[in-house]
Amino acid sequence: MSLRDDALEMHREKQGKLEVNSKVEIKDREALSLAYSPGVAEPCKEIYEDERTVFDYTIKSNTVGVVTDGSAVLGLGNIGAMASLPVMEGKSALFKNFAGVDSFPIALNTNDVDEIVNTVKLMTPVFGGINLEDISAPRCFEIEERLGRETDIPVFHDDQHGTAIVTLSGLMNALKLSGKSLNQIKVVLNGAGAAGVAIIKLLHSFGVKEMIMCDSRGAIFEGREAGMNDIKHEVSKFSNHHHKQGELADVIEGADVFIGVSVEGALTAEMVKTMAEDPIIFAMANPNPEIMPDEAKAAGALVVGTGRSDFPNQINNVLAFPGIFRGALDVRATHINDEMKKAAVLAIAELIEDDKLNAENVIPEPFNKEVAPSVARAVAKAAMQTGVSRIKVDPEDIYQKARSLTL
Amino acid sequence: MSLRDDALEMHREKQGKLEVNSKVEIKDREALSLAYSPGVAEPCKEIYEDERTVFDYTIKSNTVGVVTDGSAVLGLGNIGAMASLPVMEGKSALFKNFAGVDSFPIALNTNDVDEIVNTVKLMTPVFGGINLEDISAPRCFEIEERLGRETDIPVFHDDQHGTAIVTLSGLMNALKLSGKSLNQIKVVLNGAGAAGVAIIKLLHSFGVKEMIMCDSRGAIFEGREAGMNDIKHEVSKFSNHHHKQGELADVIEGADVFIGVSVEGALTAEMVKTMAEDPIIFAMANPNPEIMPDEAKAAGALVVGTGRSDFPNQINNVLAFPGIFRGALDVRATHINDEMKKAAVLAIAELIEDDKLNAENVIPEPFNKEVAPSVARAVAKAAMQTGVSRIKVDPEDIYQKARSLTL
Repeated sequence: MSLRDDALEMHREKQGKLEVNSKVEIKDREALSLAYSPGVAEPCKEIYEDERTVFDYTIKSNTVGVVTDGSAVLGLGNIGAMASLPVMEGKSALFKNFAGVDSFPIALNTNDVDEIVNTVKLMTPVFGGINLEDISAPRCFEIEERLGRETDIPVFHDDQHGTAIVTLSGLMNALKLSGKSLNQIKVVLNGAGAAGVAIIKLLHSFGVKEMIMCDSRGAIFEGREAGMNDIKHEVSKFSNHHHKQGELADVIEGADVFIGVSVEGALTAEMVKTMAEDPIIFAMANPNPEIMPDEAKAAGALVVGTGRSDFPNQINNVLAFPGIFRGALDVRATHINDEMKKAAVLAIAELIEDDKLNAENVIPEPFNKEVAPSVARAVAKAAMQTGVSRIKVDPEDIYQKARSLTL
Repeated sequence: MSLRDDALEMHREKQGKLEVNSKVEIKDREALSLAYSPGVAEPCKEIYEDERTVFDYTIKSNTVGVVTDGSAVLGLGNIGAMASLPVMEGKSALFKNFAGVDSFPIALNTNDVDEIVNTVKLMTPVFGGINLEDISAPRCFEIEERLGRETDIPVFHDDQHGTAIVTLSGLMNALKLSGKSLNQIKVVLNGAGAAGVAIIKLLHSFGVKEMIMCDSRGAIFEGREAGMNDIKHEVSKFSNHHHKQGELADVIEGADVFIGVSVEGALTAEMVKTMAEDPIIFAMANPNPEIMPDEAKAAGALVVGTGRSDFPNQINNVLAFPGIFRGALDVRATHINDEMKKAAVLAIAELIEDDKLNAENVIPEPFNKEVAPSVARAVAKAAMQTGVSRIKVDPEDIYQKARSLTL
């Protein structure tokens, strides 16, 4: 059978990938009186008196909403909320399998920013965090920014930050191999969608100085007028300080790093040959990368990463989001801030020990069971240090708990 | 320890009563490629091509949203969305324990009818049904009516119809004991909230002709002006044909049946004594009934039912909603109509066999394992017969499936 047949059969046979189980058995009157009327009134009254206790008495402390509008699903595009459900259920399955996080898919029948923001705000009581998923740019930026500001739980757009975090982890390790440091390198990014914007912002926060972002019209520079939007304008202010113009081929010359979140074939061997010595290539277009790894290597690339599992150095979001939410939930965080994202980058990068580090191994495997617990510990620690946690917890306890919850 | 301590300890220890589990183990690349990228794109594409297949490939076919605004929670009143969560989780736990239905609590931070309707409509893709819970009257009527009209999945306000269905089941059996028939009796209802309105409507649809509803201002009659609203106006048109006025004590004279969904002490022994021969009393005020069973019996009542588990004949919604949604989900119903509700009434009533029927046993026990499967079978059959099912299923298969899912 083909992958297509297998996938359809599995989904049909299971009728979806999630189930909501009761943690309490209700087999007699006594159990009923504790889990439901009249006993259930007691935690209700406690929460009514002090809303903070909602984390003690309900599922909020371990539950994330996976929210989408179905506008940018995988490589399928705007297929709508209904058709996006298998992906959202899959995300929830990953949350559970990789970090013991309970989550539930909320697929919204609207593409309107105000409606999405308002709807998510109204339903936050039950959630300890919101994972935004597969919402198209540039709406995703405003939705995340507003929800982050207007709610008191972590809001995280995984397509942006998950990708950015794992890319940075791989890049840090790759740079060890090339002997270059973050503040010296020149990076060219191709693709100005959700992931590209998050990557360039994270590079910036890590002190990378020379960066140029290209979209389908070429380099983005301050003062460009065609095809700009608010976020590209923002990017133009902290990148491309020399106001370089032109196509990707024109601006990639001398670059140390290429990061592609664009389309198949966008990077050619000729372009790679114009880059600086020992170039690092993260070609993450899906399903086919901007350049195939063997071709990039032949043109001189030192390290090549892609989004695919059949090549070395897979940049896979599953390395980041389960541990990030695990850590954020465990300290009842109010936000996921830059320090928490940076802590996740370092935690993932550090899992490749120096003696194991090589051009084919700059990033952990997705099924490395150390990843989520290590990320959770680092993220929780950063949350506590930056004052966005509601409670203090020993980071080692968070690591051990995550270890026990990883299936 | 007290019930209060036990309930708080249980909720704290479990950190809420629900968990979202993955039905697929994702332990290797192959499992990942089926449950997530790239295989998950296949069911997405199928659903995009034909939206009806969402029932085949996702959790929609077995998942109900438990929606509240926290405005009328148990006896606690308007405690808000956050504090209502333990009740909503409890409801979901009951759905799972009694009928294998997956459900998830959606507690909305608003009391605005338009916002509630709009929010629920936007999030329906993942749900095969909506159970409205603990929303105060009269807003609950408009919300249910609009959602029923504007969505294509069953919407059921349990506080109304669950109570009404179980009350009618008990009443039908009680009438067998008094030798009276539905179309001959005179019924007086005290309480014009969600449950009272649903009960009088269901009585009407079962052919009961003489009915008077009282609220705190006394009998509702056509033309009354004080304390009316749309729904009471509607009720006045099909009840109290003689336009009787006055207090409960004035209109209860000669009544065969008293149904109370009001407050403790609303019915006195003196009033019972003025009723017709062998009166039937359902005194369902919580936590204390309108009249205590022994007092009602002493005053001549033939059958007394309450909402409490420590007296005979408990009118408990858990007899209705799990089986109703089980049956509706199994035929992928678009609505829950009157015929389905009536089928549920009969299915519950029939579970008390004639030789077991007596004044202390007019309604099944909550933990009778025949109830949910029998209700599911009857409701599914009625749905198929009235054209609100998307698929045809053998009712016996529905019974057997429900039997296997009841924990």
